[in-house]
Amino acid sequence: MYPGPKISFCSQCGNPTEQTIPEGDNNSRAVCQACGFVDYQNPKIVAGCLVIYADQVLLCKRAIEPRKGFWTLPAGYMEMAESTEQAAIRETYEEACADVSDLSLYTLFDLPYISQFYIFYKAELSKPEFGVGVESLEVALFNEDDIPWDQLAFPIVGRTLKYYFADRKEGVFPIRHRTLDFKR
Amino acid sequence: MYPGPKISFCSQCGNPTEQTIPEGDNNSRAVCQACGFVDYQNPKIVAGCLVIYADQVLLCKRAIEPRKGFWTLPAGYMEMAESTEQAAIRETYEEACADVSDLSLYTLFDLPYISQFYIFYKAELSKPEFGVGVESLEVALFNEDDIPWDQLAFPIVGRTLKYYFADRKEGVFPIRHRTLDFKR
Repeated sequence: MYPGPKISFCSQCGNPTEQTIPEGDNNSRAVCQACGFVDYQNPKIVAGCLVIYADQVLLCKRAIEPRKGFWTLPAGYMEMAESTEQAAIRETYEEACADVSDLSLYTLFDLPYISQFYIFYKAELSKPEFGVGVESLEVALFNEDDIPWDQLAFPIVGRTLKYYFADRKEGVFPIRHRTLDFKR
Repeated sequence: MYPGPKISFCSQCGNPTEQTIPEGDNNSRAVCQACGFVDYQNPKIVAGCLVIYADQVLLCKRAIEPRKGFWTLPAGYMEMAESTEQAAIRETYEEACADVSDLSLYTLFDLPYISQFYIFYKAELSKPEFGVGVESLEVALFNEDDIPWDQLAFPIVGRTLKYYFADRKEGVFPIRHRTLDFKR
Protein backbone atom coordinates (compact mmCIF):
# COMPACT_ATOMS: atom_id res chain seq x y z
CA MET A 1 0.00 0.00 0.00
CA TYR A 2 2.00 2.94 -1.20
CA PRO A 3 2.50 5.97 -1.24
CA GLY A 4 0.14 5.49 1.69
CA PRO A 5 -2.72 7.37 3.27
CA LYS A 6 -2.74 11.12 3.75
CA ILE A 7 -1.54 12.30 7.16
CA SER A 8 -4.19 14.36 8.96
CA PHE A 9 -3.09 14.25 12.61
CA CYS A 10 0.21 14.59 14.50
CA SER A 11 1.79 11.30 15.62
CA GLN A 12 3.34 13.09 18.61
CA CYS A 13 0.45 15.09 20.12
CA GLY A 14 -2.69 14.06 18.19
CA ASN A 15 -3.57 17.56 16.97
CA PRO A 16 -4.39 18.30 13.29
CA THR A 17 -1.57 18.66 10.77
CA GLU A 18 -1.55 20.90 7.74
CA GLN A 19 0.22 20.25 4.45
CA THR A 20 2.72 23.10 4.17
CA ILE A 21 6.38 23.86 3.34
CA PRO A 22 8.38 24.19 6.59
CA GLU A 23 10.81 27.11 6.88
CA GLY A 24 14.12 26.25 5.22
CA ASP A 25 12.57 23.31 3.34
CA ASN A 26 11.62 22.94 -0.34
CA ASN A 27 8.93 20.29 0.00
CA SER A 28 5.42 20.27 1.35
CA ARG A 29 5.12 18.18 4.54
CA ALA A 30 2.46 17.33 7.12
CA VAL A 31 3.24 19.89 9.87
CA CYS A 32 1.48 19.88 13.25
CA GLN A 33 -0.32 23.16 13.89
CA ALA A 34 -0.02 22.67 17.66
CA CYS A 35 3.49 21.33 18.40
CA GLY A 36 5.24 22.01 15.07
CA PHE A 37 6.28 18.37 14.48
CA VAL A 38 7.08 17.61 10.82
CA ASP A 39 6.04 14.14 9.63
CA TYR A 40 8.53 13.28 6.87
CA GLN A 41 7.52 10.63 4.33
CA ASN A 42 10.20 8.81 2.34
CA PRO A 43 10.41 6.10 -0.31
CA LYS A 44 10.27 2.47 0.74
CA ILE A 45 12.64 -0.37 -0.07
CA VAL A 46 11.24 -3.65 -1.40
CA ALA A 47 13.67 -6.59 -1.18
CA GLY A 48 13.35 -10.07 -2.62
CA CYS A 49 15.05 -13.03 -4.27
CA LEU A 50 15.41 -14.53 -7.69
CA VAL A 51 15.52 -18.10 -6.43
CA ILE A 52 17.39 -20.61 -8.59
CA TYR A 53 17.14 -24.39 -8.40
CA ALA A 54 19.15 -26.20 -11.08
CA ASP A 55 17.84 -24.74 -14.38
CA GLN A 56 14.67 -23.40 -12.82
CA VAL A 57 13.46 -20.21 -11.14
CA LEU A 58 10.86 -19.91 -8.39
CA LEU A 59 7.73 -17.81 -8.90
CA CYS A 60 4.81 -17.07 -6.57
CA LYS A 61 1.22 -16.42 -7.66
CA ARG A 62 -0.02 -13.46 -5.64
CA ALA A 63 -2.86 -14.02 -3.18
CA ILE A 64 -3.20 -10.29 -2.49
CA GLU A 65 -3.77 -7.07 -4.38
CA PRO A 66 -2.27 -5.39 -6.27
CA ARG A 67 -2.04 -7.90 -9.14
CA LYS A 68 -3.69 -10.79 -7.31
CA GLY A 69 -3.45 -13.98 -9.38
CA PHE A 70 -0.33 -12.85 -11.26
CA TRP A 71 3.13 -14.34 -10.87
CA THR A 72 5.92 -12.55 -9.03
CA LEU A 73 9.29 -13.05 -7.37
CA PRO A 74 9.12 -13.36 -3.58
CA ALA A 75 9.68 -9.83 -2.23
CA GLY A 76 8.28 -7.33 0.24
CA TYR A 77 8.87 -4.22 2.30
CA MET A 78 12.11 -4.11 4.23
CA GLU A 79 11.59 -3.82 7.99
CA MET A 80 13.37 -1.60 10.50
CA ALA A 81 16.75 -2.95 11.74
CA GLU A 82 17.12 -5.36 8.80
CA SER A 83 19.69 -5.47 6.05
CA THR A 84 18.39 -5.78 2.49
CA GLU A 85 19.78 -9.32 2.41
CA GLN A 86 17.96 -10.26 5.62
CA ALA A 87 14.75 -8.75 4.23
CA ALA A 88 15.11 -10.71 0.98
CA ILE A 89 15.68 -13.99 2.88
CA ARG A 90 12.73 -13.33 5.22
CA GLU A 91 10.33 -12.42 2.41
CA THR A 92 11.34 -15.52 0.45
CA TYR A 93 10.60 -17.67 3.45
CA GLU A 94 7.29 -15.92 4.16
CA GLU A 95 5.97 -16.09 0.60
CA ALA A 96 7.47 -19.34 -0.64
CA CYS A 97 8.55 -21.23 2.51
CA ALA A 98 11.95 -21.50 0.83
CA ASP A 99 15.29 -21.40 2.67
CA VAL A 100 17.77 -19.76 0.34
CA SER A 101 21.54 -19.42 0.46
CA ASP A 102 24.47 -17.98 -1.51
CA LEU A 103 22.81 -14.62 -2.07
CA SER A 104 24.38 -12.14 -4.45
CA LEU A 105 23.05 -8.67 -5.21
CA TYR A 106 21.58 -8.73 -8.70
CA THR A 107 18.94 -6.20 -9.86
CA LEU A 108 18.08 -2.73 -8.53
CA PHE A 109 15.11 -0.70 -9.73
CA ASP A 110 14.12 2.87 -8.99
CA LEU A 111 10.36 3.29 -9.32
CA PRO A 112 9.88 6.99 -8.55
CA TYR A 113 6.24 6.99 -9.70
CA ILE A 114 5.35 4.83 -6.70
CA SER A 115 8.24 5.96 -4.44
CA GLN A 116 9.77 2.49 -4.22
CA PHE A 117 13.30 1.14 -4.61
CA TYR A 118 13.50 -2.57 -5.44
CA ILE A 119 16.45 -4.85 -4.66
CA PHE A 120 16.65 -8.45 -5.86
CA TYR A 121 19.27 -10.94 -4.77
CA LYS A 122 20.08 -13.97 -6.86
CA ALA A 123 19.83 -16.89 -4.43
CA GLU A 124 20.18 -20.65 -4.47
CA LEU A 125 17.73 -23.29 -3.32
CA SER A 126 19.75 -26.35 -2.36
CA LYS A 127 16.78 -28.77 -2.50
CA PRO A 128 13.45 -28.35 -4.32
CA GLU A 129 11.66 -27.78 -1.02
CA PHE A 130 9.23 -24.91 -0.76
CA GLY A 131 5.58 -24.21 0.03
CA VAL A 132 2.76 -21.74 -0.34
CA GLY A 133 3.05 -18.75 2.02
CA VAL A 134 -0.02 -16.83 3.22
CA GLU A 135 0.43 -14.11 0.59
CA SER A 136 0.70 -16.68 -2.23
CA LEU A 137 -1.91 -18.81 -4.04
CA GLU A 138 0.66 -21.08 -5.65
CA VAL A 139 4.46 -21.41 -5.73
CA ALA A 140 6.32 -23.27 -8.48
CA LEU A 141 9.64 -23.77 -10.25
CA PHE A 142 9.68 -22.79 -13.92
CA ASN A 143 11.99 -23.57 -16.79
CA GLU A 144 12.84 -20.64 -19.05
CA ASP A 145 10.48 -21.95 -21.74
CA ASP A 146 7.57 -22.17 -19.33
CA ILE A 147 7.71 -18.67 -17.77
CA PRO A 148 4.18 -17.15 -17.95
CA TRP A 149 5.46 -13.90 -19.49
CA ASP A 150 1.98 -12.45 -19.99
CA GLN A 151 0.94 -13.35 -16.45
CA LEU A 152 3.73 -11.57 -14.54
CA ALA A 153 2.64 -9.17 -11.79
CA PHE A 154 5.07 -6.27 -12.32
CA PRO A 155 7.52 -5.02 -14.98
CA ILE A 156 10.46 -5.48 -12.58
CA VAL A 157 9.72 -9.23 -12.43
CA GLY A 158 9.94 -9.67 -16.20
CA ARG A 159 13.07 -7.52 -16.40
CA THR A 160 14.84 -9.47 -13.69
CA LEU A 161 13.97 -12.78 -15.37
CA LYS A 162 15.12 -11.53 -18.79
CA TYR A 163 18.41 -10.27 -17.34
CA TYR A 164 18.90 -13.63 -15.68
CA PHE A 165 18.27 -15.82 -18.70
CA ALA A 166 20.53 -13.59 -20.83
CA ASP A 167 23.29 -13.46 -18.19
CA ARG A 168 23.09 -17.22 -17.64
CA LYS A 169 24.15 -17.78 -21.26
CA GLU A 170 27.30 -15.73 -20.55
CA GLY A 171 27.86 -17.18 -17.10
CA VAL A 172 28.30 -13.76 -15.49
CA PHE A 173 25.73 -11.85 -13.46
CA PRO A 174 26.64 -8.17 -13.17
CA ILE A 175 24.61 -5.97 -10.82
CA ARG A 176 22.00 -4.21 -12.94
CA HIS A 177 20.26 -0.96 -12.12
CA ARG A 178 17.37 0.65 -13.98
CA THR A 179 15.03 3.55 -13.31
CA LEU A 180 11.53 2.78 -14.57
CA ASP A 181 9.88 6.11 -14.97
CA PHE A 182 6.39 5.25 -16.07
CA LYS A 183 3.03 4.33 -14.71
CA ARG A 184 1.56 0.91 -15.42
CA MET B 1 17.14 12.01 12.93
CA TYR B 2 16.55 8.28 12.84
CA PRO B 3 14.90 5.82 13.63
CA GLY B 4 12.70 8.78 14.52
CA PRO B 5 10.34 9.68 17.30
CA LYS B 6 7.92 7.22 18.87
CA ILE B 7 4.43 7.27 17.39
CA SER B 8 1.79 8.00 20.04
CA PHE B 9 -1.24 9.14 18.02
CA CYS B 10 -3.00 7.99 14.83
CA SER B 11 -2.18 10.01 11.70
CA GLN B 12 -5.67 9.22 10.34
CA CYS B 13 -8.01 10.01 13.27
CA GLY B 14 -5.85 11.58 16.01
CA ASN B 15 -6.69 8.98 18.67
CA PRO B 16 -3.97 7.24 20.74
CA THR B 17 -2.02 4.33 19.25
CA GLU B 18 -0.63 1.35 21.10
CA GLN B 19 2.52 -0.60 20.25
CA THR B 20 1.24 -4.11 19.49
CA ILE B 21 1.56 -6.97 16.98
CA PRO B 22 -1.36 -6.81 14.51
CA GLU B 23 -3.15 -10.07 13.66
CA GLY B 24 -1.26 -11.95 10.94
CA ASP B 25 1.87 -9.86 11.48
CA ASN B 26 5.18 -10.73 13.17
CA ASN B 27 6.29 -7.25 14.17
CA SER B 28 5.15 -4.76 16.75
CA ARG B 29 3.54 -1.67 15.16
CA ALA B 30 1.81 1.51 16.29
CA VAL B 31 -1.88 0.49 15.99
CA CYS B 32 -4.74 2.95 16.50
CA GLN B 33 -7.04 1.83 19.32
CA ALA B 34 -9.97 3.73 17.77
CA CYS B 35 -9.87 3.15 13.98
CA GLY B 36 -7.40 0.23 13.75
CA PHE B 37 -4.96 2.02 11.42
CA VAL B 38 -1.45 0.50 11.44
CA ASP B 39 1.40 3.02 11.11
CA TYR B 40 4.22 1.07 9.41
CA GLN B 41 7.76 2.39 9.80
CA ASN B 42 10.42 1.38 7.29
CA PRO B 43 14.12 2.02 6.67
CA LYS B 44 15.16 5.18 4.86
CA ILE B 45 17.38 5.59 1.81
CA VAL B 46 20.24 8.10 1.91
CA ALA B 47 21.64 9.01 -1.52
CA GLY B 48 24.71 11.03 -2.41
CA CYS B 49 27.69 11.52 -4.69
CA LEU B 50 31.39 10.85 -4.69
CA VAL B 51 32.22 13.94 -6.75
CA ILE B 52 35.40 13.76 -8.83
CA TYR B 53 37.25 16.69 -10.36
CA ALA B 54 40.48 15.72 -12.12
CA ASP B 55 42.49 13.89 -9.39
CA GLN B 56 40.45 15.32 -6.56
CA VAL B 57 37.32 14.43 -4.60
CA LEU B 58 34.81 16.82 -3.05
CA LEU B 59 34.11 16.77 0.70
CA CYS B 60 31.72 18.83 2.83
CA LYS B 61 32.28 19.79 6.47
CA ARG B 62 28.97 19.21 8.26
CA ALA B 63 27.19 22.23 9.72
CA ILE B 64 24.60 20.06 11.48
CA GLU B 65 24.48 17.18 13.93
CA PRO B 66 25.22 14.33 13.96
CA ARG B 67 28.98 14.74 13.48
CA LYS B 68 28.94 18.51 13.07
CA GLY B 69 32.40 19.74 12.02
CA PHE B 70 33.41 16.43 10.43
CA TRP B 71 33.89 15.82 6.71
CA THR B 72 31.41 13.89 4.62
CA LEU B 73 30.30 13.21 1.07
CA PRO B 74 27.25 15.22 -0.02
CA ALA B 75 24.22 12.99 0.70
CA GLY B 76 20.80 13.04 2.29
CA TYR B 77 17.40 11.43 2.60
CA MET B 78 15.72 10.49 -0.65
CA GLU B 79 12.37 12.25 -1.16
CA MET B 80 9.09 10.82 -2.41
CA ALA B 81 8.77 10.55 -6.22
CA GLU B 82 12.54 10.76 -6.77
CA SER B 83 14.95 8.23 -8.21
CA THR B 84 18.11 7.55 -6.21
CA GLU B 85 20.08 9.33 -8.96
CA GLN B 86 17.85 12.41 -8.76
CA ALA B 87 18.21 12.41 -4.97
CA ALA B 88 22.01 12.17 -5.23
CA ILE B 89 22.15 15.07 -7.72
CA ARG B 90 19.80 17.21 -5.60
CA GLU B 91 21.68 16.59 -2.35
CA THR B 92 25.00 17.38 -4.02
CA TYR B 93 23.60 20.67 -5.22
CA GLU B 94 22.05 21.50 -1.83
CA GLU B 95 25.14 20.72 0.23
CA ALA B 96 27.93 21.70 -2.14
CA CYS B 97 26.27 23.91 -4.82
CA ALA B 98 27.86 21.52 -7.33
CA ASP B 99 26.26 20.50 -10.65
CA VAL B 100 27.39 16.95 -11.34
CA SER B 101 27.12 14.75 -14.42
CA ASP B 102 28.04 11.27 -15.68
CA LEU B 103 26.71 9.50 -12.61
CA SER B 104 27.41 5.81 -12.14
CA LEU B 105 26.20 3.69 -9.24
CA TYR B 106 29.18 2.94 -7.02
CA THR B 107 28.80 2.02 -3.32
CA LEU B 108 25.82 0.58 -1.43
CA PHE B 109 25.74 0.17 2.35
CA ASP B 110 23.21 -1.54 4.57
CA LEU B 111 23.24 0.02 8.03
CA PRO B 112 20.61 -2.04 9.87
CA TYR B 113 21.55 -0.63 13.29
CA ILE B 114 20.18 2.76 12.20
CA SER B 115 17.67 1.43 9.61
CA GLN B 116 19.34 3.20 6.71
CA PHE B 117 20.41 2.12 3.23
CA TYR B 118 23.10 4.31 1.63
CA ILE B 119 23.67 4.72 -2.10
CA PHE B 120 26.60 6.66 -3.53
CA TYR B 121 27.02 7.53 -7.18
CA LYS B 122 30.41 8.34 -8.64
CA ALA B 123 29.92 11.67 -10.43
CA GLU B 124 31.96 14.16 -12.41
CA LEU B 125 32.36 17.87 -11.83
CA SER B 126 33.18 19.42 -15.20
CA LYS B 127 34.56 22.67 -13.71
CA PRO B 128 35.88 23.33 -10.18
CA GLU B 129 32.77 25.37 -9.36
CA PHE B 130 31.00 24.71 -6.08
CA GLY B 131 29.95 26.50 -2.93
CA VAL B 132 28.92 26.07 0.68
CA GLY B 133 25.33 24.83 1.10
CA VAL B 134 23.28 25.63 4.21
CA GLU B 135 24.07 22.25 5.80
CA SER B 136 27.82 22.68 5.24
CA LEU B 137 30.46 24.79 7.00
CA GLU B 138 33.06 24.34 4.28
CA VAL B 139 33.34 22.52 0.94
CA ALA B 140 36.64 21.63 -0.69
CA LEU B 141 38.43 19.42 -3.21
CA PHE B 142 41.02 17.05 -1.76
CA ASN B 143 43.89 15.08 -3.24
CA GLU B 144 44.25 11.52 -1.99
CA ASP B 145 47.21 12.51 0.19
CA ASP B 146 45.25 15.30 1.88
CA ILE B 147 42.08 13.41 2.87
CA PRO B 148 41.39 14.12 6.57
CA TRP B 149 40.97 10.43 7.41
CA ASP B 150 40.59 11.01 11.16
CA GLN B 151 38.07 13.79 10.60
CA LEU B 152 35.53 11.88 8.49
CA ALA B 153 31.93 11.97 9.71
CA PHE B 154 30.84 8.36 9.10
CA PRO B 155 32.43 4.95 8.35
CA ILE B 156 30.67 4.80 4.96
CA VAL B 157 32.53 7.95 3.87
CA GLY B 158 35.95 6.45 4.56
CA ARG B 159 35.01 3.15 2.95
CA THR B 160 33.76 4.83 -0.21
CA LEU B 161 36.94 6.91 -0.47
CA LYS B 162 39.18 3.87 0.11
CA TYR B 163 37.31 1.88 -2.54
CA TYR B 164 37.68 4.77 -4.94
CA PHE B 165 41.41 5.32 -4.52
CA ALA B 166 42.03 1.57 -4.83
CA ASP B 167 39.75 1.18 -7.86
CA ARG B 168 41.28 4.22 -9.54
CA LYS B 169 44.65 2.44 -9.64
CA GLU B 170 42.98 -0.40 -11.57
CA GLY B 171 40.83 1.90 -13.71
CA VAL B 172 37.63 -0.07 -13.02
CA PHE B 173 34.89 0.85 -10.57
CA PRO B 174 32.70 -2.15 -9.78
CA ILE B 175 29.52 -1.59 -7.74
CA ARG B 176 30.37 -2.41 -4.15
CA HIS B 177 27.94 -3.46 -1.45
CA ARG B 178 28.62 -3.90 2.27
CA THR B 179 26.51 -4.45 5.34
CA LEU B 180 27.96 -2.61 8.33
CA ASP B 181 26.50 -4.31 11.32
CA PHE B 182 27.87 -2.32 14.20
CA LYS B 183 27.22 0.75 16.24
CA ARG B 184 29.65 3.66 16.15
